Amino acid sequence: MTDSASAPTQARQLFSTVTQDGALELDLRDVPVPTPTGDQLLVRVEATPINPSDLAVLLSAADPSGFTAFGASARSPIPEAARRFTAARAGHSLPVGNEGAGTVIAAGEDPAAQALIGKTVAAAGGSFYAQYKLLRAHDCLVLPDGVSAAEGASSFVNPLTALGMVGTMRREGYRGLVHTAAASNLGQMLVKLTQAEGVPLVCIVRNQAQADLLRGLGATHVVDSTTPDFMGQLIEAIAQTQAFLAFDAIGGGKLAGQILTAMEQAALRTQPANGPYGSSQMKQVYIYGRLSTEPTEIGHNFGMKWGVGGWLLTPYLQSAGIEEVARMRARVAAEIRTTFASAYTARITLDGAIQPDTIAAYARRATGEKYLIMPNA
Amino acid sequence: MTDSASAPTQARQLFSTVTQDGALELDLRDVPVPTPTGDQLLVRVEATPINPSDLAVLLSAADPSGFTAFGASARSPIPEAARRFTAARAGHSLPVGNEGAGTVIAAGEDPAAQALIGKTVAAAGGSFYAQYKLLRAHDCLVLPDGVSAAEGASSFVNPLTALGMVGTMRREGYRGLVHTAAASNLGQMLVKLTQAEGVPLVCIVRNQAQADLLRGLGATHVVDSTTPDFMGQLIEAIAQTQAFLAFDAIGGGKLAGQILTAMEQAALRTQPANGPYGSSQMKQVYIYGRLSTEPTEIGHNFGMKWGVGGWLLTPYLQSAGIEEVARMRARVAAEIRTTFASAYTARITLDGAIQPDTIAAYARRATGEKYLIMPNA
Repeated sequence: MTDSASAPTQARQLFSTVTQDGALELDLRDVPVPTPTGDQLLVRVEATPINPSDLAVLLSAADPSGFTAFGASARSPIPEAARRFTAARAGHSLPVGNEGAGTVIAAGEDPAAQALIGKTVAAAGGSFYAQYKLLRAHDCLVLPDGVSAAEGASSFVNPLTALGMVGTMRREGYRGLVHTAAASNLGQMLVKLTQAEGVPLVCIVRNQAQADLLRGLGATHVVDSTTPDFMGQLIEAIAQTQAFLAFDAIGGGKLAGQILTAMEQAALRTQPANGPYGSSQMKQVYIYGRLSTEPTEIGHNFGMKWGVGGWLLTPYLQSAGIEEVARMRARVAAEIRTTFASAYTARITLDGAIQPDTIAAYARRATGEKYLIMPNA
Repeated sequence: MTDSASAPTQARQLFSTVTQDGALELDLRDVPVPTPTGDQLLVRVEATPINPSDLAVLLSAADPSGFTAFGASARSPIPEAARRFTAARAGHSLPVGNEGAGTVIAAGEDPAAQALIGKTVAAAGGSFYAQYKLLRAHDCLVLPDGVSAAEGASSFVNPLTALGMVGTMRREGYRGLVHTAAASNLGQMLVKLTQAEGVPLVCIVRNQAQADLLRGLGATHVVDSTTPDFMGQLIEAIAQTQAFLAFDAIGGGKLAGQILTAMEQAALRTQPANGPYGSSQMKQVYIYGRLSTEPTEIGHNFGMKWGVGGWLLTPYLQSAGIEEVARMRARVAAEIRTTFASAYTARITLDGAIQPDTIAAYARRATGEKYLIMPNA
């Protein structure tokens, strides 16, 4: 292996722990910096985003605004009612951070690994909220020359999710998509991706500024769920696009049911109802996020051909197969500054990530707000 | 064709109409009795059940306790909020009655039809709430000698649904079933069918009498949702049976979500959680009835591998194919007094079916209560 003079022997890493007495503790620890062997790379992590999927591990069921600082750690209580769901984690310190990017500063003896020293790479797979991370060369996406770690930090979760949504649509025989929280980074990618693919997309947003932003990207069907004629506009947009598959980032509340109701009304414009069982058009909402932790409330004004369920990227990638995933990754790298570009509203350090005020801020998951951790800044 | 001296030229039939002014009207009309030709049979309908699926057509969204009698008809208002869902029916008088049984009193010239004169047959397909019905010979199930029309009246909807549930379980790779409103006629069939098939079944009921009834049939996993330890018992029963597919007749309220939560807890006994995404065990609830018209409220304590959706018999039968359906029907006929036996708590006439008090009674859909219409009694 080739050691770099710039790698220290110890460096900092963030851990999340459910304590035995029912609290959630975030702390920074000095951990040994590993030495890469074989096809391994030692990457100095320069940028790693806080995705909603990271928040689930980071904060578990703790009250995000209830943190207090204790030295190099912060603690918040977990509500009694949630503890049986967090019990399995109790006493285990979990690393956090699903993806990130940085510079390869050392590599094992494998020539393919050696060839990457000095390159900026992105990867996924956990424990990116750290100053250094050991990765295998073939798990890394080499970013095009000139693309920074900050630009490439979100090369996996959102881009592959957007591609997975379009792939799921094709696999399940639908002809268009509905997307909620559609002004998110992921939602903006989906607008650009569906345009490139010729896939009709209905974007559901929660205010006029978000609608304007998406229309500025070229989105044609944008519906604001806070306007009085939301349902009428949604029915019209679905009738025009024939989008009977929705991906919902919100999860809780009435929106998933409203989407099914609008799909049914749109379907009934072109086909008769099958007696009391509604249209014969299958209508599906996949919940892939939980921006709302309210229960999901689903009515029954949409017949019997419907489904609501969870959707996760990992099983999709497993079923897509290695070659398809390789094509998806190559496309992300090539379009990281266009289709798959991310924007961040705040850049913070690892120390910042465990400050109570900052935790409360990034935990709000407001659409359009996204935090980037710079562990070596 | 062979005409029978016993067939009149006019006979009574029940119709359900959504009126232009927003009411639901049930009425009995004299309609011409048709003359069978070719492979057609004229059947004197002697018994036809009121299934929940019939109630949906019969009463639509009308208030079941709001009927008033007007001569040979009865009317009840449809709530304003429901009218846009009933508008498609307005002005159309719909025949009602999904299945029934009776005696073949005339047949077309086709020898296969002629051979059935005098036989007791059962069939499905609509407009059984009538004194006479025209059917094609090959759509009829010839009941075994000695089986009465009342015994064979429910040969299609419930028996094929029970068989379809077991078939869906096998097709989708599950190893056991959860069933709600499990003391219904259908639920009792499912207890007997799953015993014969060696399929583990978890029965959810709503009182001790229902639990006793099912245990009397040999059910081993019976859970009462009104007891304080319902969730604990449900988790234990699912852990023992590995039943990760549920068929829910209730639809509204919290039960579907509780079943998913219990399935997840049962799955976590034998496998670790996949981080915040829960177990990798897929968990599915199919809603096939709407005994509750409340919204379905689904929590989010069961990871991301889950689905809730509608299930209908007709698409299942279409996908099963003609040969499989023929096998299912033959089995129903052979076991109509055992596995697929039905019980009725009241027998009424067509006149009785449009009496306001009787409508309010059969519309309650209480588990274990089932009405049989005898149109020629």
